[in-house]
Amino acid sequence: MNYDENNEMLERLEALLDQRNYNQAGALVKDMNPADAAFLLEELSEQKMPVFFRLLPKELAADAFAYMSPEAQEVLVRGFSDRELEEVMEQLFLDDTVDMIEEMPANVVKKILRHVDAETRKRINQVLNYPKDSAGSIMTMEYVDLKRSMTVEQAFDRIRRTGVEKETVYTCYVTDSRRKLEGIVTVKDLLLAEKDQVIRNIMETNVKSVSTHTDQEEAARELSRYDFLALPVVDAEGRLVGIVTVDDAIDVIQEEATEDIEKMAAMAPSDRPYLKTNVWETWRKRVPWLLILMISATFTSGIISAYESALAASVVLTSFIPMLMDTGGNSGGQASATIIRGLSLGEIHYRDVPRVLLKECAVALLCGGTLAAASFLKLLFLDRVGLPVALVVAATLVSAVVVANLVGSSLPILAKRLGLDPTVTASPLITTLVDAAALMIYFNVAKLALGI
Amino acid sequence: MNYDENNEMLERLEALLDQRNYNQAGALVKDMNPADAAFLLEELSEQKMPVFFRLLPKELAADAFAYMSPEAQEVLVRGFSDRELEEVMEQLFLDDTVDMIEEMPANVVKKILRHVDAETRKRINQVLNYPKDSAGSIMTMEYVDLKRSMTVEQAFDRIRRTGVEKETVYTCYVTDSRRKLEGIVTVKDLLLAEKDQVIRNIMETNVKSVSTHTDQEEAARELSRYDFLALPVVDAEGRLVGIVTVDDAIDVIQEEATEDIEKMAAMAPSDRPYLKTNVWETWRKRVPWLLILMISATFTSGIISAYESALAASVVLTSFIPMLMDTGGNSGGQASATIIRGLSLGEIHYRDVPRVLLKECAVALLCGGTLAAASFLKLLFLDRVGLPVALVVAATLVSAVVVANLVGSSLPILAKRLGLDPTVTASPLITTLVDAAALMIYFNVAKLALGI
Repeated sequence: MNYDENNEMLERLEALLDQRNYNQAGALVKDMNPADAAFLLEELSEQKMPVFFRLLPKELAADAFAYMSPEAQEVLVRGFSDRELEEVMEQLFLDDTVDMIEEMPANVVKKILRHVDAETRKRINQVLNYPKDSAGSIMTMEYVDLKRSMTVEQAFDRIRRTGVEKETVYTCYVTDSRRKLEGIVTVKDLLLAEKDQVIRNIMETNVKSVSTHTDQEEAARELSRYDFLALPVVDAEGRLVGIVTVDDAIDVIQEEATEDIEKMAAMAPSDRPYLKTNVWETWRKRVPWLLILMISATFTSGIISAYESALAASVVLTSFIPMLMDTGGNSGGQASATIIRGLSLGEIHYRDVPRVLLKECAVALLCGGTLAAASFLKLLFLDRVGLPVALVVAATLVSAVVVANLVGSSLPILAKRLGLDPTVTASPLITTLVDAAALMIYFNVAKLALGI
Repeated sequence: MNYDENNEMLERLEALLDQRNYNQAGALVKDMNPADAAFLLEELSEQKMPVFFRLLPKELAADAFAYMSPEAQEVLVRGFSDRELEEVMEQLFLDDTVDMIEEMPANVVKKILRHVDAETRKRINQVLNYPKDSAGSIMTMEYVDLKRSMTVEQAFDRIRRTGVEKETVYTCYVTDSRRKLEGIVTVKDLLLAEKDQVIRNIMETNVKSVSTHTDQEEAARELSRYDFLALPVVDAEGRLVGIVTVDDAIDVIQEEATEDIEKMAAMAPSDRPYLKTNVWETWRKRVPWLLILMISATFTSGIISAYESALAASVVLTSFIPMLMDTGGNSGGQASATIIRGLSLGEIHYRDVPRVLLKECAVALLCGGTLAAASFLKLLFLDRVGLPVALVVAATLVSAVVVANLVGSSLPILAKRLGLDPTVTASPLITTLVDAAALMIYFNVAKLALGI
């Protein structure tokens, strides 16, 4: 359903719930997709949400629960009877359970853990122990494992027997007695093989896998690079401990892109949708960088003050300060955005620094040259500021763009090399450095050319 | 393989090819993953690429071909014999063929079309006719279709018979005699059902689909929202014409995020990796916005000139111009980046405008207040500029941040409402408007408070 259909459904549902017409409300939703049901649950008031949840068929309710935000899940869990909680927990996949637990307050987590069996509790704790943003922390342990000596028919039997509870059955993992990953076989391979063929002979042994400590972004990138539906996660001894499924990889890709965009715009990343974040939280995410940037901008003020006498001598120079700073900032921003995205997508590496700098230098000369020519003509013939000032502005433009592109492209790569996040270091540092450089160039060229 | 392993492999391979040791080079690559083989092919020189391509086992060669960039594909196609071209074209899925054709010069396209059968040629033309960036343009027509009266066993027979050539077999589509989509059934459903059950009784009839003209970004979002492996694409009459598979949806998500980032940094989007784009192309993508932004920055210069007398009266005011403009720009940038991303992810809609404006206003008062307080104290006690100037700067900060956030958040939503791309309109307009507003506020507050 699209956004409008969902809203229409929401209005009908609210009306039915207001009239306590539960039969019709139940009929309305019984064949609904879990993601749509989750949308409706989230939009309902805290009073109506549990009522509606109980109207859903059991399996649909549990599936919808997995799609909901932690805040809404918490409201439901707090109101659940022991029996209800048990039923939902039984249906949830391990990765969804862990996602939920990570966001809940301690007393709710306790309530949840009381209602899962010992084995699941052990596994939950194991996943919780992997570093945040690692492949281990987003993997699921519900995969189908096969043995190399099985026949295709035996493999299908095993999938039929255990498949209901698995998050994906389409890629099966062949492990030895010590759980070491030996190969993979897809259901497509199995379907296209003869019944009595042995797994050993049809499995793919050139298996791509990541370690539990691999960054989740890298895991998602590997999965997408090879067009996999799931990527196996192994421990330090090469034993299979879980799989990352494609739907979770997509979520990681979306989150990381959002984070990159937020950080490039000088904000602390937020993992909640905008309209669900409250004002204080948004303030907390935005104000630190604004403060840092404001303070760093005072360096620029310092530079202007230092050249006060030059400015006083030729007041027209002041009016070009914003344009020069903006252009430097824009060029540096273009270069850094390009490089940061390239780093995120794994297209650019440290060894590419010389190529990147050379290219940025060339692009900067072209861009700066174009801008300088345009503004030189405008200043000379439209604004009639005189040749010396027009030359000063044009020369500053070229130099500022070159500096901006070199700073903007090299800083993110260096940051990454030093193990820092390229995105965060970029924005404030580049702005300050480029602004300062543009002004210094400007004033010194002006002093030299105009003799002030 | 990760980046380092790939590079190591590349060096070994190049050495073997230099020594004309083709046997060993062939042995090195025969079990390789197609994506890895494509990486190696792309990195080889134009001379070695076709040599290496011919060393690959036929099926692997065709699969690797699908992963390559259009530039590299063109090099290979130009060198192919008729037979080779036919073999590769036979193996390719329709969506990969179309992707390739869209990027090739006319004479290469002609060569390719001569080597596909009439039916495929018809389908290629059909897909090429869908609008760029629509679901129709990225879909594949190679799906498994079933009939509602089939039994599970018959369905498996059909999958086995036709599945080899299908891009995915895991979701099958149930259509009537006029190709109208009636339901879907997954291989998991089929595996868990009894052999003699009839498709009609196990298929899911609440089917999510998109139209051929749906934007590809929206299609990818729907697929990810429902955690599907493929999303059916139907024509205006509800007839099934193709499916969008999850791997293509991931590519769309990545591309769209890159495009958003590029446009936010005021660049025309590029669909090639940074290191594969030449200097002229990069210049062409970057210089238009730089020029527009530079010209729009002259408005700001105009404002400064207009208040020249005020500035001459109190030279200290000049030194705060960069800081005030930067802060306004940063706040506006934060707001617009947040809103643009929210729009891209489908989290924010036009009807949310009042909520968004209210929230941005509140956040702006908090952020602006914090910044004003910090700079007021600094100006008064550290810089000792005197109470009037400190007050002027603080008041300007709060007002500029409020204006910046309102402009930054409302413009993208309005742009989208008007059918424009929110990302493009944002950057230049917001910068110019916010800069101009900040300066006007500054000078007017200064005139009022300092009586100049």
